[in-house]
Amino acid sequence: MGDLKSFGENGNEVSDVGFEGRRKSCWYEEELDQHLKLCFALNRILHTGASQYQDIALLDTKAFGKVLVIDGKLQSTEIDEFIYHESLVHPALLHHHNPKTIFIMGGGEGSTAREILRHTTVEKVVMCDIDEEVVGFCKSYLLMNKAAFFDPRLRLVISDARAELENCVEKFDVIIGDLADPIEGGPCYQLYTKSFYESTLKPRLNEGGIFVTQAGPADVVPYSAHIPSYADVWGWVMASDSPFTVDVAELDERITHRIVGENRYFDGETFASDSKLSKAVRKSLAEETQVYTEGTAKFIYGHGTGHKSRRA
Amino acid sequence: MGDLKSFGENGNEVSDVGFEGRRKSCWYEEELDQHLKLCFALNRILHTGASQYQDIALLDTKAFGKVLVIDGKLQSTEIDEFIYHESLVHPALLHHHNPKTIFIMGGGEGSTAREILRHTTVEKVVMCDIDEEVVGFCKSYLLMNKAAFFDPRLRLVISDARAELENCVEKFDVIIGDLADPIEGGPCYQLYTKSFYESTLKPRLNEGGIFVTQAGPADVVPYSAHIPSYADVWGWVMASDSPFTVDVAELDERITHRIVGENRYFDGETFASDSKLSKAVRKSLAEETQVYTEGTAKFIYGHGTGHKSRRA
Amino acid sequence: MGDLKSFGENGNEVSDVGFEGRRKSCWYEEELDQHLKLCFALNRILHTGASQYQDIALLDTKAFGKVLVIDGKLQSTEIDEFIYHESLVHPALLHHHNPKTIFIMGGGEGSTAREILRHTTVEKVVMCDIDEEVVGFCKSYLLMNKAAFFDPRLRLVISDARAELENCVEKFDVIIGDLADPIEGGPCYQLYTKSFYESTLKPRLNEGGIFVTQAGPADVVPYSAHIPSYADVWGWVMASDSPFTVDVAELDERITHRIVGENRYFDGETFASDSKLSKAVRKSLAEETQVYTEGTAKFIYGHGTGHKSRRA
Amino acid sequence: MGDLKSFGENGNEVSDVGFEGRRKSCWYEEELDQHLKLCFALNRILHTGASQYQDIALLDTKAFGKVLVIDGKLQSTEIDEFIYHESLVHPALLHHHNPKTIFIMGGGEGSTAREILRHTTVEKVVMCDIDEEVVGFCKSYLLMNKAAFFDPRLRLVISDARAELENCVEKFDVIIGDLADPIEGGPCYQLYTKSFYESTLKPRLNEGGIFVTQAGPADVVPYSAHIPSYADVWGWVMASDSPFTVDVAELDERITHRIVGENRYFDGETFASDSKLSKAVRKSLAEETQVYTEGTAKFIYGHGTGHKSRRA
Repeated sequence: MGDLKSFGENGNEVSDVGFEGRRKSCWYEEELDQHLKLCFALNRILHTGASQYQDIALLDTKAFGKVLVIDGKLQSTEIDEFIYHESLVHPALLHHHNPKTIFIMGGGEGSTAREILRHTTVEKVVMCDIDEEVVGFCKSYLLMNKAAFFDPRLRLVISDARAELENCVEKFDVIIGDLADPIEGGPCYQLYTKSFYESTLKPRLNEGGIFVTQAGPADVVPYSAHIPSYADVWGWVMASDSPFTVDVAELDERITHRIVGENRYFDGETFASDSKLSKAVRKSLAEETQVYTEGTAKFIYGHGTGHKSRRA
Repeated sequence: MGDLKSFGENGNEVSDVGFEGRRKSCWYEEELDQHLKLCFALNRILHTGASQYQDIALLDTKAFGKVLVIDGKLQSTEIDEFIYHESLVHPALLHHHNPKTIFIMGGGEGSTAREILRHTTVEKVVMCDIDEEVVGFCKSYLLMNKAAFFDPRLRLVISDARAELENCVEKFDVIIGDLADPIEGGPCYQLYTKSFYESTLKPRLNEGGIFVTQAGPADVVPYSAHIPSYADVWGWVMASDSPFTVDVAELDERITHRIVGENRYFDGETFASDSKLSKAVRKSLAEETQVYTEGTAKFIYGHGTGHKSRRA
Repeated sequence: MGDLKSFGENGNEVSDVGFEGRRKSCWYEEELDQHLKLCFALNRILHTGASQYQDIALLDTKAFGKVLVIDGKLQSTEIDEFIYHESLVHPALLHHHNPKTIFIMGGGEGSTAREILRHTTVEKVVMCDIDEEVVGFCKSYLLMNKAAFFDPRLRLVISDARAELENCVEKFDVIIGDLADPIEGGPCYQLYTKSFYESTLKPRLNEGGIFVTQAGPADVVPYSAHIPSYADVWGWVMASDSPFTVDVAELDERITHRIVGENRYFDGETFASDSKLSKAVRKSLAEETQVYTEGTAKFIYGHGTGHKSRRA
Repeated sequence: MGDLKSFGENGNEVSDVGFEGRRKSCWYEEELDQHLKLCFALNRILHTGASQYQDIALLDTKAFGKVLVIDGKLQSTEIDEFIYHESLVHPALLHHHNPKTIFIMGGGEGSTAREILRHTTVEKVVMCDIDEEVVGFCKSYLLMNKAAFFDPRLRLVISDARAELENCVEKFDVIIGDLADPIEGGPCYQLYTKSFYESTLKPRLNEGGIFVTQAGPADVVPYSAHIPSYADVWGWVMASDSPFTVDVAELDERITHRIVGENRYFDGETFASDSKLSKAVRKSLAEETQVYTEGTAKFIYGHGTGHKSRRA
């Protein structure tokens, strides 16, 4: 029978299907918008399933390793998710003088909790995600987040983040929005409105508390980073009632003293660059006058069965 | 954790990745020629590997079930391979008055042997395929052919079919070419030449013996069948020194008496239709003057690392 | 400036965009169903537009020449539309002993009229299509049908075929359904129902009259042909109250005497083959019990803004 | 005939081919690398052709407007080429105290010349491109560069840039490399080597002269910008024997006084951000030890018939 066992050994490669290894034939197609598709060559379709809220798949791609896809939208990849999650978490926690308690709206993938828990000042993280199946799927399959799920400082709540914040009395040092885009048909767009920020979210922040999310309004530090697998530059905003005064050197100092392990993407100079936006983006922000309310929600490309698809 | 186990149970479906279950996002792309691609939505990439001669993959597609791909070319599918293999095997064996010994050039997938072994007259089948890994792969993964591989009447020889026929002294009632297309760079095109037919193959046929292959010259009965997953009508030719005199009724009679189990595609009337070619095809054949020799080989679209890719 | 003029001369080829002429990069994607796509390499997008009922495009493809696309569905191609239209028209007209008056339901592309008008017995053709823009588009751009549109025997009516048949008193020797598939949301599915055939269509046939359409019920001769650009075998049914008694020789005789010019696809033997269906198809037809009524319509894959997309 | 003229008027839109305007069916596929494809929905294929060196196409896409494709690689798009060309030209010219004479290696598209000619200090621009056909194509079809091609300060030389620099005695204030990537089989990779920079290029720079190109070695200011249609962040390096001392305010001051018209992408703060690289990129650069010589050239993905394909 010769070398049949080789199928077991190197069986996780569609290595040469196609023409002499040059042309790949199994693809995952992502619609970036209705006029643009990004296609990832596949090694494997690892796991698929559906929850009450959303469809979920874990793919093994040649360019970006393992890829998490929710409702047909790429969420994060093994190769570059650190850029997204370091950018989401560290600016807010490092600008805070002593972040102890953190609330994550969404975040079921676990990567945001993982980055937060690297901060030695952190004593408690509440992760509030609506979709139990997705959380379970990620807990089982995303090995790099496994430790975070079992960290005793993490408290997982399966619930709607808005309801949870409305009903709780606790206050937090940092609240992080790790939410779906405001797509039509998804419940999530209500978590991007002015009234939600004023009436629900802000009362749950401690004095000097910071809020960060992947999009949003003024009175904030907006910053951005290029995520290769998104084929785009992605933006975040960080807001606080206290001014942001931490400079590059102080950021690097805090990284050294407050974060366990080494960042791969984020440091003081990275932030200095990412928080300077190009002329084209600044002009576009300056000309923006729309306030995001329940009635004037501007939807991003995509259709949701649920609430978690980060990308549009 | 709720219903996480469901990932195990219905995990073999990327059922709703995409938009509300309507838009699929994982695809296998087959180049029919350089100007035409056929794309199959995927459930899973089941197994992949490579042998000395060719790459091989087993895919689970939504439209055609399990699909065997060799060197980037679809070979056969769970849903419609019976059309190909019934068409390849039964006309030749049924037109023969009493086929006992059969030689298969190639055929490593096992489906041709499976159909041959349904004939109660058959006492011995020699399957001569050059690629041990592919034969092993098919034996392991193609469940519908499992019984055929273990039938005591089957003798498997790992060798080049041409060399094997040149060296053997045995003669056969039927010789079946279940070979790759004559693609450039593949060794297989030598098995489609006039000199091979005259000098090597014909001496190994018994009196009244029949030769059938998926393509070829005149002095034959050509016939064709539509293979949905090939997106094309596929042709075969059957040749003998004795005239073919079996009519529709006699074919049906022989099917009843000589084949175990019921055909799904092939019967007398099917053959009466398939062996009548359309005016366009007849005209094209009538105008064909090229004799296929080693020096004048006309290649079919594709590049081979090996010898088995049936389709172009 | 050298050879810039060459852009004008050979400008209708994306001849080598890609890799050394081997990999094409501009494609038209057709969804055959939700799990299967067929992709055609493009030379040009020649014309596009939209009518009240449907979208329409004329593409120049590498594999099939000019291609007419309506509502995102390939209708016919320069290279192989003759197979469809010879198959639709000639069996019915040749089985009729003396066809003089013909009614086409739909047919706005003009190819059906073109084939009918090749019959020397034909004195009058009524083409009843609902979509004036599409008819105008085809009249302008499909050069091979230009003569047919200006033939004095043709009368073009822009109207709903059902209404037209209900309101007219004239009877016809042959009625041809050159209609869209019965897709959901299209008006056309009502033209495939039992009640339409009995109450509206049949009263408009002369004694010995024949009706032919691309799909349908029993009491008929069903036949099929492989259309390469459809990546499928396509079927038609031909019905009459008189029995069909014309044999192969008589068909060929009638072709010689009654049709101007030479058929490329259709002759007696082609029909003998095409009207014999394979065992698999015969079994499937034999097991079919559903009667197609307004209430039980079985839809074919696709969504229509209008009524003309032949393929699913 | 109704509204047929509408095909002429809105004929440059495949507006609704597909499903109710939501699903597009004509695509340009770009292979970013062998494992990643980016697909652009098409309105039209405007022009195509081939020169002695390369294939060229002008496409009208839905997402990025008119797109120039050379050897199967997207070069620049109507919507975002200003980011690339402002980033290529303005940092170098603005950091120079008084740039009068400029040499462009390549640049046949004309966009680089266009941006240079906006500088009021500039008296002479030599554009040296090897491909006369491509230059002619761009001159004819890229309307936004038309004025630049006819500016009396521009001198167009059809020649190999290396040979031209080796043979000329003139020196320049700024030399700009607007070249193909160093892809295998292209002549262009020789214009990225250490020996070319030292022996050929540097002697042709005036005292205080600046060299800028889209990639390269140290002793330089590297900077980057996100190009949406490249689905990537793109980098440049700017080198000089004199230190770069111009700060943000001075850059903005110089823009005001020295550039005609308003930049859309580039200003002082944009450059401050773009010339700070992220930690991940800095680490990767710091660990790079390879010197790019003729013998050690590292090729970028792609195959060239010629020398101009900027992207890989």
